[in-house]
Amino acid sequence: MTDVLTGAGIGQGVALGPVLRMADPLPEPSDAPSSRGAEEEKARVAQAVQTVAADLRDRAGKVSGTAADVLEAQSMMAEDSTLADDVAQRIDGGKTAERAVFEGFAVFRDMLVSLGGYMGERATDLDDVAQRVIAALEGRPAPGVPESDTPYVLVARDLAPADTALLDLTKVLGLVTQEGGPTSHTAILAREKAIVAVVGVAGAQDLTDGTEVVLDAAAGAVTVAPSADQRADAERRIDERRAALSGGLEPGALADGSAIPLLANLGSADGTQKALEAGAEGVGLFRTEFLFLDQRMAPTVEQQREQYIRLLQAFPGKKVVVRVLDAGADKPLEFLNDAHEDNPALGLRGLRALRASEDILREQLTALAEADAQTEADLWVMAPMVATVEETRYFVRLATEYGLKTVGVMVEVPSAALLADRVLEEAAFASIGTNDLTQYTLAADRLLGSVAGFQDPWHPAVLRLIGEVGAAGAARSKPVGICGEAAADPLLAVVLVGLGATTLSMSPAALADVRLSLKRYTLDQARSLAEIALAADGAADAREAVRAAASRFTSPA
Amino acid sequence: MTDVLTGAGIGQGVALGPVLRMADPLPEPSDAPSSRGAEEEKARVAQAVQTVAADLRDRAGKVSGTAADVLEAQSMMAEDSTLADDVAQRIDGGKTAERAVFEGFAVFRDMLVSLGGYMGERATDLDDVAQRVIAALEGRPAPGVPESDTPYVLVARDLAPADTALLDLTKVLGLVTQEGGPTSHTAILAREKAIVAVVGVAGAQDLTDGTEVVLDAAAGAVTVAPSADQRADAERRIDERRAALSGGLEPGALADGSAIPLLANLGSADGTQKALEAGAEGVGLFRTEFLFLDQRMAPTVEQQREQYIRLLQAFPGKKVVVRVLDAGADKPLEFLNDAHEDNPALGLRGLRALRASEDILREQLTALAEADAQTEADLWVMAPMVATVEETRYFVRLATEYGLKTVGVMVEVPSAALLADRVLEEAAFASIGTNDLTQYTLAADRLLGSVAGFQDPWHPAVLRLIGEVGAAGAARSKPVGICGEAAADPLLAVVLVGLGATTLSMSPAALADVRLSLKRYTLDQARSLAEIALAADGAADAREAVRAAASRFTSPA
Repeated sequence: MTDVLTGAGIGQGVALGPVLRMADPLPEPSDAPSSRGAEEEKARVAQAVQTVAADLRDRAGKVSGTAADVLEAQSMMAEDSTLADDVAQRIDGGKTAERAVFEGFAVFRDMLVSLGGYMGERATDLDDVAQRVIAALEGRPAPGVPESDTPYVLVARDLAPADTALLDLTKVLGLVTQEGGPTSHTAILAREKAIVAVVGVAGAQDLTDGTEVVLDAAAGAVTVAPSADQRADAERRIDERRAALSGGLEPGALADGSAIPLLANLGSADGTQKALEAGAEGVGLFRTEFLFLDQRMAPTVEQQREQYIRLLQAFPGKKVVVRVLDAGADKPLEFLNDAHEDNPALGLRGLRALRASEDILREQLTALAEADAQTEADLWVMAPMVATVEETRYFVRLATEYGLKTVGVMVEVPSAALLADRVLEEAAFASIGTNDLTQYTLAADRLLGSVAGFQDPWHPAVLRLIGEVGAAGAARSKPVGICGEAAADPLLAVVLVGLGATTLSMSPAALADVRLSLKRYTLDQARSLAEIALAADGAADAREAVRAAASRFTSPA
Repeated sequence: MTDVLTGAGIGQGVALGPVLRMADPLPEPSDAPSSRGAEEEKARVAQAVQTVAADLRDRAGKVSGTAADVLEAQSMMAEDSTLADDVAQRIDGGKTAERAVFEGFAVFRDMLVSLGGYMGERATDLDDVAQRVIAALEGRPAPGVPESDTPYVLVARDLAPADTALLDLTKVLGLVTQEGGPTSHTAILAREKAIVAVVGVAGAQDLTDGTEVVLDAAAGAVTVAPSADQRADAERRIDERRAALSGGLEPGALADGSAIPLLANLGSADGTQKALEAGAEGVGLFRTEFLFLDQRMAPTVEQQREQYIRLLQAFPGKKVVVRVLDAGADKPLEFLNDAHEDNPALGLRGLRALRASEDILREQLTALAEADAQTEADLWVMAPMVATVEETRYFVRLATEYGLKTVGVMVEVPSAALLADRVLEEAAFASIGTNDLTQYTLAADRLLGSVAGFQDPWHPAVLRLIGEVGAAGAARSKPVGICGEAAADPLLAVVLVGLGATTLSMSPAALADVRLSLKRYTLDQARSLAEIALAADGAADAREAVRAAASRFTSPA
């Protein structure tokens, strides 16, 4: 009998191929005294550290964005002088280079963990550096993504950012991890890159290199050593899906022809080409944090304008929604955020932080207005983390002062959804950020594994709030977009349209599946599905009930 | 012309009396070298530390609950050996005792601040200890609450927990602080103890000892050196209010006779007598955290049972609502909470944490059921931090298993309010925690000063959610109580009744004002006021609109 492992599938894809495991972590180095002598051990460490730091810097140069930042930070960790002193002292005490690195890094690791918060999260990055240095000392390959000339299904405990940075997508057919849930770092990566993935798979640790597996993301299943029939079935589904997805880049629409423009979420102007190739009809969320991260000062108006022009020039005549700086959404910014918040997700972030440093907001609006004047795109501007009608009024007034024509707000705080009728009196449009909206509605940190079960946008309470915004938009003929991850879930996307969403924005890789899904249902059917979801007791019930009802609708794909 | 300072008034009271200022912090000790020699300086420090630690322990013995814990912790800080070593080294380096204590404590203070979170908040306590030790060295009175034989209005920058612990309420007529807002530590204390207070008063620093002032909490005004007429008016209002409040302890009811039982919030069984004296018709929220705090292990079933029996025996035939352990609501518990959450308010707290350590929950339910069997009170049991229907079902099933008859849930997460109809299918009652519900609905940490403006239960979004729970309760004939601070606001209490609250629970000191306020309005009027509040754009608008409308209703008080 074939063995089937289960976990949380990401997306809709199917994959078939041989397993390649990520190298397991190195064993703990022995604590036997050094036979080489202190000077030689120190020279070995210096050499290994130099190799690893150079390698990390080299990788950092090949990628961009957060991945580059993490790798750059890791190369600095490797060469940290306090750490080097600590390791040298241990070698003077008779330890081997391997053991001294192991112990010295562990002390710093524990220190980071005890600091908690953002620093605590860096502990994993430091562990990774320690492993690389020890591997270099032992002349082994560094643990991490395996090298292979033929395509494979990558199996790992979980992926670290350093692992994912250089993942060769032409070789990785799919991804199976033992840890992590649907909202983990790995899951988000898989969704962004449209990698077929099943995460949180108990038993994944027993898969051996070369074993053939079939991944079925929609079913959350990993079939080990499939039979000939199962292989043939998987191959057929892979082909069908490829054919369906390559069916053209027509605009997003329902089966009855109702247009639902499909837009792209972008984190920098670098992604515009990919978005256009995937058939994005514009940009539904352009995040501007990349301009501000890792800077001790805000960028100048000129630096910003240049980036906005690059973005807007790629979409002449099309809608581009730019979100002003969401400070504190991810990591705090030195020049904006208060460093000592107990609950930063409930703190002075988003528009609250910008308002406290209004100069920065005014400069950003200046740069946006200047870029708008020089380009042909239809620029919309919105503010993050708006909670009240008063804040909406404030932002709309300020942006209008700079001549920006279409000014709206993100709806990601429950109060903004509950007062959507009044918010949309003031704002030209609303864009719902489902990740944060879910986080606040269920009071569950979206980055915390132990409450990941609550972080599900299918929850009827979240859908209720989305529906309220949709209804308020319809009553005032104002557009309501969705730009959270929920929009990238092909079936949930239909429900969101049924709740009143007029556009959907997502990572470009998700556009094809959603486009395909929308075409299967009429607006009336989408509304029925929405009603079914709203009537459910919980997220899982809603998903199941909608899935069952959807399968009874038979609109042509 | 008389000078009038303004701030945020707490409650409805009026006070008249002479100002007495809290001693200002000590000046920074000079960095001139010691002329006494290291040994003598060290002996001086040892003596001062011993005096301060003994004094703090002595105070701790006279109070209970959190205040005692804080004082006890402070006495340990004073005698901390690492700190002592640091101070001794500075003395060896030539510093005076005063300067060495100042510098040594400052280093530890900064360390606490850099750790952030719960540790960061302890920095204020450590500062206070340093001030006390330096004052002892200099032979001055410790900064803090002044001693006086005659009643006075206390004026301070702000109050530290150590200051408030021994506040002599027979002497303090009222309280004026320069810092702090309506949700600060001082404001919460004032509300709990029914002290007439105006906080966040700019200009309070210029008030001098002996100056007469009139405090008008409802108007948020401090009249400096009142005229004879103003004094007479204040005296008249104080008398009127006293007469009205002592008008008997009849059950809570509206002008039309509709019963609205008024219950007490209690943090331990010690408060039962005060609650009964204030006319509490039962207990609406019995917090059980006091049994678990500062313990490395959960209390035994026997220890718990004894406390529950003490509580229940005080209320024969009356309703007593006990909330099972809300772990992580305030400070984390070693045996329950994950120490490294980035946003503990959105983490594994309340029922989530109990469910992960179900033995502790089962023991608590066992103790409650045993106490119930031995007493005559009407015991209701509820779970904190319930977000979903599934959690409601879980808790009701588990508690019912132990024979507990009336099992409900706290509604403090927006999703629970949004699905109140389905939650109340499962639960026998709902109790709304307005503090947390406001925190999550507006996504603003209720303990963070920089977002205090969002933490206002008058916000129409919060009132919408309360109204949904009220409607769901009415539809199923299930009681809906309020046990957050909102219930203690006399005018908001009327709005809450208009939204469907069937009972109100608050600190016993607040009962009289709320009882008086309810008697002024009929149920129809309360409903009209609720409609007016719901239609407002924001919290301030809602409060103003309701205040204006309420003044037009002329029901007899």
